[in-house]
Amino acid sequence: MESEIKNSFKSVVGAEYVKDSKAQLFAYSYDATANFQALPDLVLSPKNTEEVQEIVKICDKEQIPIVPRGSGTNLAAGTVPTKGGIVLLFNNMNKILELDKENLTVTVQPGVITQDLSIYVEQNGLFYPPDPSSMKISTIGGNVSENSGGLRGLKYGVTKDYVKALTLVTPDGGIVKLGGKLAKDVAGYDLMSLLIGGEGTLGIITEITLKLIPLPAVKKTGIAYFNSLEDAAKTVSAIISNRIIPVTLEFMDKGTIGAVEDFMKIGLPREAEAMLLMEQDGNKEQVDEDIRQMIAIAEEMGATSAILAASEKEAASLKAGRRVALSALSRKRPTTILEDATVPRSEIAKMVRAIQDIALKYDVEISTFGHAGDGNLHPTCLTDIRDREEMDRVERALDEIFHIAIELGGTITGEHGVGEMKAPYLEWKLGASGMNLMRSIKQSIDPKNIMNPGKIFAKETKKRLVIHNGQ
Amino acid sequence: MESEIKNSFKSVVGAEYVKDSKAQLFAYSYDATANFQALPDLVLSPKNTEEVQEIVKICDKEQIPIVPRGSGTNLAAGTVPTKGGIVLLFNNMNKILELDKENLTVTVQPGVITQDLSIYVEQNGLFYPPDPSSMKISTIGGNVSENSGGLRGLKYGVTKDYVKALTLVTPDGGIVKLGGKLAKDVAGYDLMSLLIGGEGTLGIITEITLKLIPLPAVKKTGIAYFNSLEDAAKTVSAIISNRIIPVTLEFMDKGTIGAVEDFMKIGLPREAEAMLLMEQDGNKEQVDEDIRQMIAIAEEMGATSAILAASEKEAASLKAGRRVALSALSRKRPTTILEDATVPRSEIAKMVRAIQDIALKYDVEISTFGHAGDGNLHPTCLTDIRDREEMDRVERALDEIFHIAIELGGTITGEHGVGEMKAPYLEWKLGASGMNLMRSIKQSIDPKNIMNPGKIFAKETKKRLVIHNGQ
Repeated sequence: MESEIKNSFKSVVGAEYVKDSKAQLFAYSYDATANFQALPDLVLSPKNTEEVQEIVKICDKEQIPIVPRGSGTNLAAGTVPTKGGIVLLFNNMNKILELDKENLTVTVQPGVITQDLSIYVEQNGLFYPPDPSSMKISTIGGNVSENSGGLRGLKYGVTKDYVKALTLVTPDGGIVKLGGKLAKDVAGYDLMSLLIGGEGTLGIITEITLKLIPLPAVKKTGIAYFNSLEDAAKTVSAIISNRIIPVTLEFMDKGTIGAVEDFMKIGLPREAEAMLLMEQDGNKEQVDEDIRQMIAIAEEMGATSAILAASEKEAASLKAGRRVALSALSRKRPTTILEDATVPRSEIAKMVRAIQDIALKYDVEISTFGHAGDGNLHPTCLTDIRDREEMDRVERALDEIFHIAIELGGTITGEHGVGEMKAPYLEWKLGASGMNLMRSIKQSIDPKNIMNPGKIFAKETKKRLVIHNGQ
Repeated sequence: MESEIKNSFKSVVGAEYVKDSKAQLFAYSYDATANFQALPDLVLSPKNTEEVQEIVKICDKEQIPIVPRGSGTNLAAGTVPTKGGIVLLFNNMNKILELDKENLTVTVQPGVITQDLSIYVEQNGLFYPPDPSSMKISTIGGNVSENSGGLRGLKYGVTKDYVKALTLVTPDGGIVKLGGKLAKDVAGYDLMSLLIGGEGTLGIITEITLKLIPLPAVKKTGIAYFNSLEDAAKTVSAIISNRIIPVTLEFMDKGTIGAVEDFMKIGLPREAEAMLLMEQDGNKEQVDEDIRQMIAIAEEMGATSAILAASEKEAASLKAGRRVALSALSRKRPTTILEDATVPRSEIAKMVRAIQDIALKYDVEISTFGHAGDGNLHPTCLTDIRDREEMDRVERALDEIFHIAIELGGTITGEHGVGEMKAPYLEWKLGASGMNLMRSIKQSIDPKNIMNPGKIFAKETKKRLVIHNGQ
């Protein structure tokens, strides 16, 4: 990047909010995704919407790529500066601006940490349900750009369900305010939903108003262990068919249970093939009744053990166990690839079984955990990127997992996004017509392709493997 | 339309499913909106997605406008064939295709009547919450295209919150399947949300999968009357601030109460300035507690009377009274114009008071009812389109209502859509940048502008009135 252009960025944000040393650029060359890396030209920390606007205007004029980045917890290389250019940080835009108790909304800057927001509103008796596993460090801006899910998605939905208003800097440097503190708004196309999960490819979000709901009075946790995957999956289906919608219904397979136990030493039974963590919230009578029924259903479906957590503390430690599943697994091998295949919940048993078969077939190590009630599974491959031959097998295994997810009516990503990593697979899900629709939207809003280029849209779609019956 | 082209449409759907007599074309020249009318060239009733695709291909080739239409209950002239061409009916695509009890979804063709679907799923212990006032005759396809709301929106959201998958025929005759029976899906842009509320301007929806939830066990209804609008509005705010989210929180002003009482004779007190209908559903303990609290809050805020409906029957008759508000009002004058201004719920009192002042100022008759918990108000103007001078005053009054709604952080339409009627006002809400974004999306997906042309995008934006303080 020419120093003249660099200087114009510096004059917008102030020299102290520009990073351009080699070490600094390196630090923003990757995110939480293995095997993807590219150096940015400059890292900027604007302080308000107007500074973002000025930055975007320069990028528009000079055709410089711009990559918005929260805490870089992205698992699909969505925040890697694939084509260089600007990495835009929100560490100077991290304020909670307003809690509106009458309209039940909170307005924040994009850099607010998810968990900080969550704790803040709970202290006011209110509840922001989306809880991505990375919520301790992830930002709300990142959550909105990725439409993040979390453990409570089954009952409460995902980030999209809570965004009421956005301020957007468009790729040509305009400012648009979308939505409002409104329960209903049908004034034209739903541009907000397009931006939520838009992965920063359509503009830069600079302010966010979120819907809150009353904090549930009571929460209880049950736990069930199974000798077979199928029994656990049948339990999930039976709970929902019995018209219980628990707040969480989390699944861990044997490999994950063992890894978590190694890490946390909380007394999980290593011999179990599967465990389900079943949580309900609401008023006391409903919670008691739902947990009682869920435990009874688990027993009926063949659980080797199904019990209520004895205390808040035990419940918290079980939930913490589930939340650290990824960290626990990632200790075992040099490289962790966390996947995000999602299927209709009726297909969970088939999907988990298929993952296990695929791991055997390609001789790779894959453990699976995830949000069973959502059908949102996280097959996690433990490997070593330095071993090319193994990585080739890993890649073929993952291809086959995506393939089967789609065959079962599922999708290639439930909550992590497409980014650069999944882009070659997107057409498998959407078909050529769907890709054309998305491309024409991108082209119409960001004709110069400066907004997070190289994400969502791959140069080439991967060839689909031919899957033979019974494999 | 040339007879050769007519014949090609006839050969797609079969001559018996084509309407082209003068009387038939006249019947589809208007919808539920006063003062908008245009004759179509042909009315077609296809039987499946493939026939829709063939029709769209002809329209694409010949540049013929195509207007999808459910039951024509649209209140913003969204289903008037403004530019002629084809009116597409779904009376042959009105089947419930599948109820999936494991994944809690129902898959339907667009022509299914909303209430028929609602009753069907409730017979299976499940619940489809969106309940537009027109649900007895409106279709699911229409609800999706308009993102319809209803009385239960406060607690359960709107149509958008329940759409899981769509089959779309694109303007160039492609078929795209979007979404799936999935709780989470972030594979690329949220095209579904763009189509929901897209008012038929981006393609034709031919199949819809909806999310269902368990049917709540118990439902109870409370009713409160007030001597002042402000007391009713304060009650609404206090209920929500006390962290109660009722399933309905409906408002009627004095004019509406009188009209409903004339029509229904259910014993509503004509002298009341306002009434609130407060309904809660859920499990018994929660419902009892919430209703008790809501009644106590209403009393505290100065209700002249606040009671629990004595019986299911009384509750049903009160709800029926609210549902017929529009019909009851429309008996009073030759022309009824139902508006749809929506504000943050904290601004309801200001908005209702402003509407009353505006009615006085322009000497027009406006009664207001609506979804108070949502801030979604329906100021309803009773007039006579044959009286040009009065209609001019009506129009100026409505302009001012939209203006104030936006000033209060609201929107020009909460649940009715933009259609042709509101198109000149849309820029008031979105600004020039917002309009540009929407136009570029429309242009990129429907470059020939054959999909319901003349809707959402007006040739010219209305000039905003200058509002003086205190008016």
